[in-house]
Amino acid sequence: MKLWQKETAVEQSVEQFTVGNDRELDIQLAPFDVLGSLAHTQMLESIGLLTKEELIKIQQELKQIYREIESGNFSIDEHVEDIHSQIELLLTQRIGDAGKKIHSGRSRNDQVLVDLKLYFRHEIQELVRNTERVFKLLIELSNQYKEVLMPGYTHLQIAMPSSFGLWFGAYAESLVDDLELLLASWKVCNKNPLGSAAGYGSSFPLNRKLTTELLGFEALNYNVVYAQMGRGKTERILAQGMSAIAATLAKMAMDACLYMNQNFGFISFPDELTTGSSIMPHKKNPDVFELIRARCNKIQALPNEIALMTTNLPVGYHRDLQLLKENLFPAFRSLKECLQMTELMLRNIRINQHILDDAKYDYLFSVEVVNNEVLKGVPFREAYKNIGLAIEKGTFEPSKEVRHTHEGSIGNLQNDEIQALFDKVISNFGFDSVDQALNRLLQ
Amino acid sequence: MKLWQKETAVEQSVEQFTVGNDRELDIQLAPFDVLGSLAHTQMLESIGLLTKEELIKIQQELKQIYREIESGNFSIDEHVEDIHSQIELLLTQRIGDAGKKIHSGRSRNDQVLVDLKLYFRHEIQELVRNTERVFKLLIELSNQYKEVLMPGYTHLQIAMPSSFGLWFGAYAESLVDDLELLLASWKVCNKNPLGSAAGYGSSFPLNRKLTTELLGFEALNYNVVYAQMGRGKTERILAQGMSAIAATLAKMAMDACLYMNQNFGFISFPDELTTGSSIMPHKKNPDVFELIRARCNKIQALPNEIALMTTNLPVGYHRDLQLLKENLFPAFRSLKECLQMTELMLRNIRINQHILDDAKYDYLFSVEVVNNEVLKGVPFREAYKNIGLAIEKGTFEPSKEVRHTHEGSIGNLQNDEIQALFDKVISNFGFDSVDQALNRLLQ
Amino acid sequence: MKLWQKETAVEQSVEQFTVGNDRELDIQLAPFDVLGSLAHTQMLESIGLLTKEELIKIQQELKQIYREIESGNFSIDEHVEDIHSQIELLLTQRIGDAGKKIHSGRSRNDQVLVDLKLYFRHEIQELVRNTERVFKLLIELSNQYKEVLMPGYTHLQIAMPSSFGLWFGAYAESLVDDLELLLASWKVCNKNPLGSAAGYGSSFPLNRKLTTELLGFEALNYNVVYAQMGRGKTERILAQGMSAIAATLAKMAMDACLYMNQNFGFISFPDELTTGSSIMPHKKNPDVFELIRARCNKIQALPNEIALMTTNLPVGYHRDLQLLKENLFPAFRSLKECLQMTELMLRNIRINQHILDDAKYDYLFSVEVVNNEVLKGVPFREAYKNIGLAIEKGTFEPSKEVRHTHEGSIGNLQNDEIQALFDKVISNFGFDSVDQALNRLLQ
Amino acid sequence: MKLWQKETAVEQSVEQFTVGNDRELDIQLAPFDVLGSLAHTQMLESIGLLTKEELIKIQQELKQIYREIESGNFSIDEHVEDIHSQIELLLTQRIGDAGKKIHSGRSRNDQVLVDLKLYFRHEIQELVRNTERVFKLLIELSNQYKEVLMPGYTHLQIAMPSSFGLWFGAYAESLVDDLELLLASWKVCNKNPLGSAAGYGSSFPLNRKLTTELLGFEALNYNVVYAQMGRGKTERILAQGMSAIAATLAKMAMDACLYMNQNFGFISFPDELTTGSSIMPHKKNPDVFELIRARCNKIQALPNEIALMTTNLPVGYHRDLQLLKENLFPAFRSLKECLQMTELMLRNIRINQHILDDAKYDYLFSVEVVNNEVLKGVPFREAYKNIGLAIEKGTFEPSKEVRHTHEGSIGNLQNDEIQALFDKVISNFGFDSVDQALNRLLQ
Repeated sequence: MKLWQKETAVEQSVEQFTVGNDRELDIQLAPFDVLGSLAHTQMLESIGLLTKEELIKIQQELKQIYREIESGNFSIDEHVEDIHSQIELLLTQRIGDAGKKIHSGRSRNDQVLVDLKLYFRHEIQELVRNTERVFKLLIELSNQYKEVLMPGYTHLQIAMPSSFGLWFGAYAESLVDDLELLLASWKVCNKNPLGSAAGYGSSFPLNRKLTTELLGFEALNYNVVYAQMGRGKTERILAQGMSAIAATLAKMAMDACLYMNQNFGFISFPDELTTGSSIMPHKKNPDVFELIRARCNKIQALPNEIALMTTNLPVGYHRDLQLLKENLFPAFRSLKECLQMTELMLRNIRINQHILDDAKYDYLFSVEVVNNEVLKGVPFREAYKNIGLAIEKGTFEPSKEVRHTHEGSIGNLQNDEIQALFDKVISNFGFDSVDQALNRLLQ
Repeated sequence: MKLWQKETAVEQSVEQFTVGNDRELDIQLAPFDVLGSLAHTQMLESIGLLTKEELIKIQQELKQIYREIESGNFSIDEHVEDIHSQIELLLTQRIGDAGKKIHSGRSRNDQVLVDLKLYFRHEIQELVRNTERVFKLLIELSNQYKEVLMPGYTHLQIAMPSSFGLWFGAYAESLVDDLELLLASWKVCNKNPLGSAAGYGSSFPLNRKLTTELLGFEALNYNVVYAQMGRGKTERILAQGMSAIAATLAKMAMDACLYMNQNFGFISFPDELTTGSSIMPHKKNPDVFELIRARCNKIQALPNEIALMTTNLPVGYHRDLQLLKENLFPAFRSLKECLQMTELMLRNIRINQHILDDAKYDYLFSVEVVNNEVLKGVPFREAYKNIGLAIEKGTFEPSKEVRHTHEGSIGNLQNDEIQALFDKVISNFGFDSVDQALNRLLQ
Repeated sequence: MKLWQKETAVEQSVEQFTVGNDRELDIQLAPFDVLGSLAHTQMLESIGLLTKEELIKIQQELKQIYREIESGNFSIDEHVEDIHSQIELLLTQRIGDAGKKIHSGRSRNDQVLVDLKLYFRHEIQELVRNTERVFKLLIELSNQYKEVLMPGYTHLQIAMPSSFGLWFGAYAESLVDDLELLLASWKVCNKNPLGSAAGYGSSFPLNRKLTTELLGFEALNYNVVYAQMGRGKTERILAQGMSAIAATLAKMAMDACLYMNQNFGFISFPDELTTGSSIMPHKKNPDVFELIRARCNKIQALPNEIALMTTNLPVGYHRDLQLLKENLFPAFRSLKECLQMTELMLRNIRINQHILDDAKYDYLFSVEVVNNEVLKGVPFREAYKNIGLAIEKGTFEPSKEVRHTHEGSIGNLQNDEIQALFDKVISNFGFDSVDQALNRLLQ
Repeated sequence: MKLWQKETAVEQSVEQFTVGNDRELDIQLAPFDVLGSLAHTQMLESIGLLTKEELIKIQQELKQIYREIESGNFSIDEHVEDIHSQIELLLTQRIGDAGKKIHSGRSRNDQVLVDLKLYFRHEIQELVRNTERVFKLLIELSNQYKEVLMPGYTHLQIAMPSSFGLWFGAYAESLVDDLELLLASWKVCNKNPLGSAAGYGSSFPLNRKLTTELLGFEALNYNVVYAQMGRGKTERILAQGMSAIAATLAKMAMDACLYMNQNFGFISFPDELTTGSSIMPHKKNPDVFELIRARCNKIQALPNEIALMTTNLPVGYHRDLQLLKENLFPAFRSLKECLQMTELMLRNIRINQHILDDAKYDYLFSVEVVNNEVLKGVPFREAYKNIGLAIEKGTFEPSKEVRHTHEGSIGNLQNDEIQALFDKVISNFGFDSVDQALNRLLQ
């Protein structure tokens, strides 16, 4: 059954090609399609397109279907085109003709749009929650290992003393900025496209503000042409938000692979978290970090893929947009898993506490010595030149004391301030009011 | 003169290769380098690393250099490596040894970082101002042409009635969401990296909160390792913000090229704004829109370019980051010009007011007719089938009335609401407090 | 069972995360894994690492497994990590200890490498075959419709007369150049990595030239470090080859969508090949072309995705490379389907034979008129100016004759020459010698 | 002066926006524009559109202009739009009206197309020559250091013995495959678009085979619509060819940065080829390699940029294509410089000959020991397990002998075979016949 069924049948191969693997992907939209219909039908009743009695039957049955989806007892029948048709079909089977009326004042286009926005909001919430767990753990580790020094590199050359407190804390702070981008994605997602029909509105006297409120959206996608234009664009912006977190995880994974390498030997992990080799029995391979890196780089490629698939398409819906689901939907799960595996690995990380005992790190302290000279009154350029020459001549003998006290330095990590920044970003999402709206809708 | 001059000279070709075209790009950083030094030296005096007298001389001379930059009387000498060296050199030439002291407690790394953030903030402000002009014009045009109908397409097939009011308004609303992303970029840029030295902090008792305040930053990049990690990341996020606006302009340009095409003939422009052909005398080519489209698609490629250049680099500075300037800096100018040319074109747009008189657009009204049947009590599926069959049999005769009244539809554009959304995003940037801080610094 | 099983069990979640969906993807490698083992074991016997008897038993059983794979009676058991382990397991179950010996002188790394190259060669052959069908059809259509004129556009403005002969022929010729790129991919794939072990060779006296010959490779990846370095690189180059064909199909699909649009109305398709709309009963939507366009743009994004996932990885194997399968493997099927659907659509295309009767296309002939003036002796610039002014003043009256005779023009399409170019590229692949080698191996 | 000058002047800002920085980029096309005109005018005379006398004057003057370009005495006047107009203007100033006739039977479109193809051919030749120098040096270094062992890594974990012979040789062999892709680009470039006019051919009886021969092209872009379609496509394919070489150089640069890092310490360079730090006097920074890596990653982003700028554009010229020059043209110079700097660095590389003396590399030899057990008759899985347990228990004591003898391994590098592969690819370009044709044209 297709919503647009005409009298002429469509060639089998065309149908297969156009439906693709939509059925599998659409399963993820199921609960959100029901939520959208719950709001839409309440609105229809409010403008007289459904009777009170019809509404009650419809709402009861939709909530029943929602529970079935929640409990896993739901699938799209083989001969049914997509999730929207499946739910409408179930409804009609169970409550008769009233079920057919829920499509009034709605096109498949705005139905998909609102399903996607509801789904994206849900996935963003999940990502934020998982990010928060990693963030907290990083702050915890930063505080725990704040005394443990490690070399800091620039140009991958030994440069200046750093610490595990700094290293963990840096990635925590990185997640704060990442969430700013995800917040922008959230704001773009958190606007209601329902009521835009096929992208040109409807002659029905719809009350779009009502559905906006019922679904907990912060605002409308007002202009109906823009509501449709948001498809593809929303996905791209969301992928950019995800790519921010992905970039941070990938970078940390690169560091981890390097630090686990025996030439560095800064960190290690229990055997249960590493893998071996078919031919080299002594290996402890950082597969988890390599795969986090690879998956996250793949997610970083996603915004560009979406741009390539949507650029230069003139205004109005194109079927191309349907295909955006294919890499985007799995990316949510992939990024969540990367956050979870990062957490698992970090929870089990073992720190080498005596890295700087090795003489090759002595040069780390040259800047300290320059600075000390400066504090004693030697002009910077002169002090710098003196130490440089001493190093060239091999007469440099450092003190290994580090007394950094300014904000954000080894001795003053400011993790509380970073936590405060994080909390502030989180609060801007306003998850609570969304959750409350959806709960009301389902009661 | 290089800041890091050692006793061994560097091979000529290496120097050329590594300096590249930095001198030309760096000119754009000049005023921001001075601003950074104004704040840094005030801070140095506050912690006793400069005397009151030294500070006064330095500030006077830095402000003088700032004025020279503003008036265009400034360049980087050929034998000078970069903008930072040039300004330090000028200072030392004019006020002697005190000039050398401004480098205390600062590395070239955090100096570049703060210059870039100040520059980026400035460019974002410029972009927002130019975006605002286009936004306002779009709203104006939307209101002006709200009665003029045009066909709405889906799948590039004639679908439903639309209007120029909707078309202009859709792009206005698109810019609102774009600014959400640019706002995220702004927030990432609006944090102070100064004092992070080479990415591992300093033994000087720097007061980073003071420079943060002086430069009008909203917060610090607290963790010094993160401050350095922000390089490349900030650029990528900023490019993503720019790509949002670029995507909107490119899409509108694609529409414009299509609508100027004689098969559509929806819009036209005066001859002075189009170009001709070397061999086809009748052409009115939409070169401006084609180049807006191309430039904006190029800007859309920028985030990916930056990702490719920075991914899989472990923590710490790498020289690779220097190269990010090359495509990013010109992109600011390019996007600004695209906004300005969009404004110029839109200001001169001519609208075909009688598009729908053509019989080929009659089918646009089929949905209206279906809906009217529904309002009369015919079930949707049945009404739909009836009209579909009438069209297949050629017996369809539409009424061309459009009475859309719901929010965001042809008859109810909600441009005031869209304006309100726009104003709210703009206010979140907080440009005023930044401007005030910089003005204080320069007084 | 994992090849690298150590005494310590690996955490369940780590195992799930690292194995990912490898099992499903690996099924496609099954026949090629057997082919690789057939060659490898023949070689092992030739250097005395297998007895004649062992070899016979192994070869018999491998060929049996090959037949099972061919007939679809093959799967990877749930507790088995990958395809290589599965086949080794089956072999050992069926013929005992000799089965275990096939892993001598081979690492999982070079085993995967050779499987991939054999698989890629196979997929390239499939793509070339499908491309050839589309090419032939395009040439056929070009010849068939060589007399039917259509407007040629530049800047999407009506420019000069063109023809369906030119339009179909252009896409045919485009495929010739695309195959040059796919040929480069083929050459990179058609070199033998087997024997490179984990990327550093082996102390066994392997005969790599023998396996090269047995598997029909044109040459070796000689240097063992390079053999391993080819992973990721081969995928990227192959994706570039695929993206060439994809770009051609996507462009033709864009044309088709535009030409099916009612403002153009140049082509149409039977109802069975188009789809309808849930709310607009008159629509004939070009979903197939929209999805070809979208899928092909997605394939165009693939080389960049691979670049992002592999760049800045130092020499040597990284687990990241395993993930490249995920988007690459399905892309083969997707591109093949796009070629097949393009063929289906083109086979059913209906051409509007009277496009130029419409007066809006009169200007197409202005250049002809200019040229005729020139042939009569008027300087080009003068003739050009005269016609331009006539058009501006509305006094232009064209003759609609087109007499283009030079190579590649409307009246002289040179489709035979284009066919000759195509045949030449195909012959450079040398599929026959590869097929012969593999057939020998399986006898 | 613009070739398409109409009576209405174009707005100043439009002119600036559309011309952009074309003048600077176009200078690089100057010699090729003259070559194209030399061939075009010979052909015009052969079909009677120029007299013998006109031809002689034109050819003389064009060759004079060519010499002026060669000697650097050439520029595009400020009021002249592009290179084509400039050369036509010069010609007309010097020989009068005959100069104007060279535009007969040619559009600016096919003139640009042929200029670009000639320019691209030239740049490809330059790239191949520079690649050859690096290739030869790598083979030389591979032979020179074939005895020097180094650790081989997988998963960035110490894995098996490798050698500098293998490391240098691997990158040499990588360049062979890269040239296959560049060869595909060459083949696509080496076809003649001249005579396709604005993409729809011409009513003049052009002899396109003659210009093909005169300009040394291997074949025609036959179909005139395809000739124009080649714009953008040629650039993308060429960028893909360049990206292959770039990927190899970037990877080698990454290795070099890692190996120069003090934790590895495998290689070093003289002070003149490294740079220092403003605040860390002991640093020897690998800036050259970092910039090679960054520039090459940027080149790797180029094909995607071009794809984004050209995808979804329907058939026919669009002004968007003009903008492709901006990043592509500088990329030639950048890649050439990267090749040259790679050569300079490699020529001065210093190899640590005693890396494996360090005990941490003992595990490298575990596979050797496993293999030796196997050769003694122990089943592989058992030997593997034994050594693995020995390593876990700390009882592993390796022999450090490496006797790898098979093709491509440490003891048998097969550099002559790799050289043979390289020579074969080079010979497929056929540079000689191109050079000869151009020399004839200029005599």
